[in-house]
Amino acid sequence: MTVAEQAERARSASIVLAQASRARKDAALEAMADALAKAETAVLEANAEDVDRAEANGTSAALIDRLRLTPDRIAGMVDGLRQLAGLPDPVGDVVRGWTTAQGVEIRQVRVPFGVVGIIYEARPNVTADAGGICLKSGNAALLRGSSSAASSNAAVVVALQAGLIEADLPADAIQLVPGPREVTAELMAARGLVDVLIPRGGAGLIDTVVRNSQVPVIETGVGNCHLYVDASADQDMALAILVNAKVQRPSVCNAIETVLVHADAAPTFVPQALEALAGAGVTVHGDERVASYGTVVPATEDDFATEYLSLDIAAAVVDSLDDALAHIRRFSTGHSETIVTDSQRAAARFSAEVDAAAVLVNASSRFVDGGEFGFGAEIGISTQKLHARGPMGLPEMTSTKYVVTGSGQVRG
Amino acid sequence: MTVAEQAERARSASIVLAQASRARKDAALEAMADALAKAETAVLEANAEDVDRAEANGTSAALIDRLRLTPDRIAGMVDGLRQLAGLPDPVGDVVRGWTTAQGVEIRQVRVPFGVVGIIYEARPNVTADAGGICLKSGNAALLRGSSSAASSNAAVVVALQAGLIEADLPADAIQLVPGPREVTAELMAARGLVDVLIPRGGAGLIDTVVRNSQVPVIETGVGNCHLYVDASADQDMALAILVNAKVQRPSVCNAIETVLVHADAAPTFVPQALEALAGAGVTVHGDERVASYGTVVPATEDDFATEYLSLDIAAAVVDSLDDALAHIRRFSTGHSETIVTDSQRAAARFSAEVDAAAVLVNASSRFVDGGEFGFGAEIGISTQKLHARGPMGLPEMTSTKYVVTGSGQVRG
Repeated sequence: MTVAEQAERARSASIVLAQASRARKDAALEAMADALAKAETAVLEANAEDVDRAEANGTSAALIDRLRLTPDRIAGMVDGLRQLAGLPDPVGDVVRGWTTAQGVEIRQVRVPFGVVGIIYEARPNVTADAGGICLKSGNAALLRGSSSAASSNAAVVVALQAGLIEADLPADAIQLVPGPREVTAELMAARGLVDVLIPRGGAGLIDTVVRNSQVPVIETGVGNCHLYVDASADQDMALAILVNAKVQRPSVCNAIETVLVHADAAPTFVPQALEALAGAGVTVHGDERVASYGTVVPATEDDFATEYLSLDIAAAVVDSLDDALAHIRRFSTGHSETIVTDSQRAAARFSAEVDAAAVLVNASSRFVDGGEFGFGAEIGISTQKLHARGPMGLPEMTSTKYVVTGSGQVRG
Repeated sequence: MTVAEQAERARSASIVLAQASRARKDAALEAMADALAKAETAVLEANAEDVDRAEANGTSAALIDRLRLTPDRIAGMVDGLRQLAGLPDPVGDVVRGWTTAQGVEIRQVRVPFGVVGIIYEARPNVTADAGGICLKSGNAALLRGSSSAASSNAAVVVALQAGLIEADLPADAIQLVPGPREVTAELMAARGLVDVLIPRGGAGLIDTVVRNSQVPVIETGVGNCHLYVDASADQDMALAILVNAKVQRPSVCNAIETVLVHADAAPTFVPQALEALAGAGVTVHGDERVASYGTVVPATEDDFATEYLSLDIAAAVVDSLDDALAHIRRFSTGHSETIVTDSQRAAARFSAEVDAAAVLVNASSRFVDGGEFGFGAEIGISTQKLHARGPMGLPEMTSTKYVVTGSGQVRG
């Protein structure tokens, strides 16, 4: 089947989904969870094929770890589907409504996008997560996973489709899009057939999709995030946030990659920070002023532009809030930016002037997450300014429609 | 100056604008209005140059009409700027806010996009409208007008910039982007420099921008809009809405282009409709079943796909609501679709199943308009599903930012 044919089937399914009640969608999610739990052995066998092939190809251990499924990871996918069933349905929500002077009633109502394409990398759990989120938000899903996870993804989709069928919803509502590289290009060219594309993965994947897609894209994820320790910061608080935001899970987009320290705080803060970071196994890439307080790897310009996603951090001393803001303006990818300060004025300026999806004052950037925000599900963290910015829950997976009701009014 | 240089200047200006109070932006709008009113003679002289050049080039009368400014049209631009000053400022609005279990406060706050590019055709009044809307919403504007209106646009921008300077805001906040065709391509490639592009004009312009831009686009305007007259319709109401929606202003995107009549209503409705439309000077392109009730131009497949924007209408008889829905699904551009019915069930199905920015029940599609909706200003009518759908007012010209405030919380 071509991408266009798959998209046509998805379109037909999306018309049914858009009208499906919450009860039916939730029944499908529960049936999908049951089917996936029952298919554990089949999914693990399929996954073993993918892992064997990856190992034979000399794939890195880190990538193989992302690819590998375990009974625990499958249980996590099953739980995720059940949690979605428990979340409110955004479709049909009236966002706002009013009546005009002529007595025409206007309501803005949430509706699904229609057909959503997800382009993602090795993690097969995304297949269940993204399929479930699309279903709950009333969208048909075209799942373009990595060829390295082809067998795992196929086995997961079999279970998801069994759940759809059991709830009397069309199996075409969740389809895997297989095939060679050119298929991704076809998906990006499918304007009018696919309503939205969401890339999930590394910076290279996201950049390729954003630059080449004719289908509207929601850009997610790249985070070169900064922590600025102000002159007035409570230094114990700053230290705790620094270590948490760098170390708690360094491989994710809301981890910090650079710490900037105000010159007045540096003499006491930097030595403590270097010790704490070293103790946590973090390599510090420091500028000359940081280096004057202890041993660091000399930082180059590139270090400040790098999203390490590892136990590395760039560090610099700045002379003022203005210098910190200028540094962030230059290097930030607009994800999550943090200030630790006791100054109301510094907090207000930082919040107002930093151009990012999230700005944090005296809290760890690790909170910028759909789960922590209380959204219950997250398709990704948008770093673009159109449509959704920051963690995206179910409502962000919808569009709206104006329903205008009159009793024969015409325009004068 | 290159587009990149203009965009850099716009970025610097946007940083100032994003922090500007409503009072200062409103003072600028009033000063812009004053300056434009004072510049009437200069603007009319510049416009006369454009009109002379267009006439020498053999430009059509319709296009010259759009290009031509009069004292009345300039007064309309001046009034538009003053009205913007009277509207609420969307920037800083808290869209929602809550506190997490750990006591972290989260607020989602409206912020400007930053730098907005507007690509538009001959109408020089767009220069003042779009410049004013961008300013009020805190965005720097790069205005790429048509070369046919180059002198008029330049004269208008001189007045707008004088107003900015008087209110102590940077003149670079509203810039005209002059130059040959390639400049438009540069603007579409300016990803990272320009935050959003909004094309305003005909279908060809919009399609070019949507397909070629690497900058995120808000698609506006193309409207192949339908009116479906249900079996149960009040036929006087249907007739009044038909004539209003076709005739009141045929050149705009929310005018209807096709009328579909249920077979049960056709014997009484179609003859009356043909008479009323003929009386209003409308040419009916009818299918065979419509032709059986009177004289029409035979409709081809193309007629049903055409956005006439003139005193022409396509017409067909359908056997059911399902057939009407199928026709609309096939030919609609997703702008505004209308049903006239007395059936609650038909109204509910039509509202739910038609995939469009606006669905109207028993009201003229001419109401789908920022002014009629009460938005006070309108940058266009979005026909895309991301970000904004339907008439776009000032809030639709903003993004949001999460401001997360804690007292030292870290993630466990």
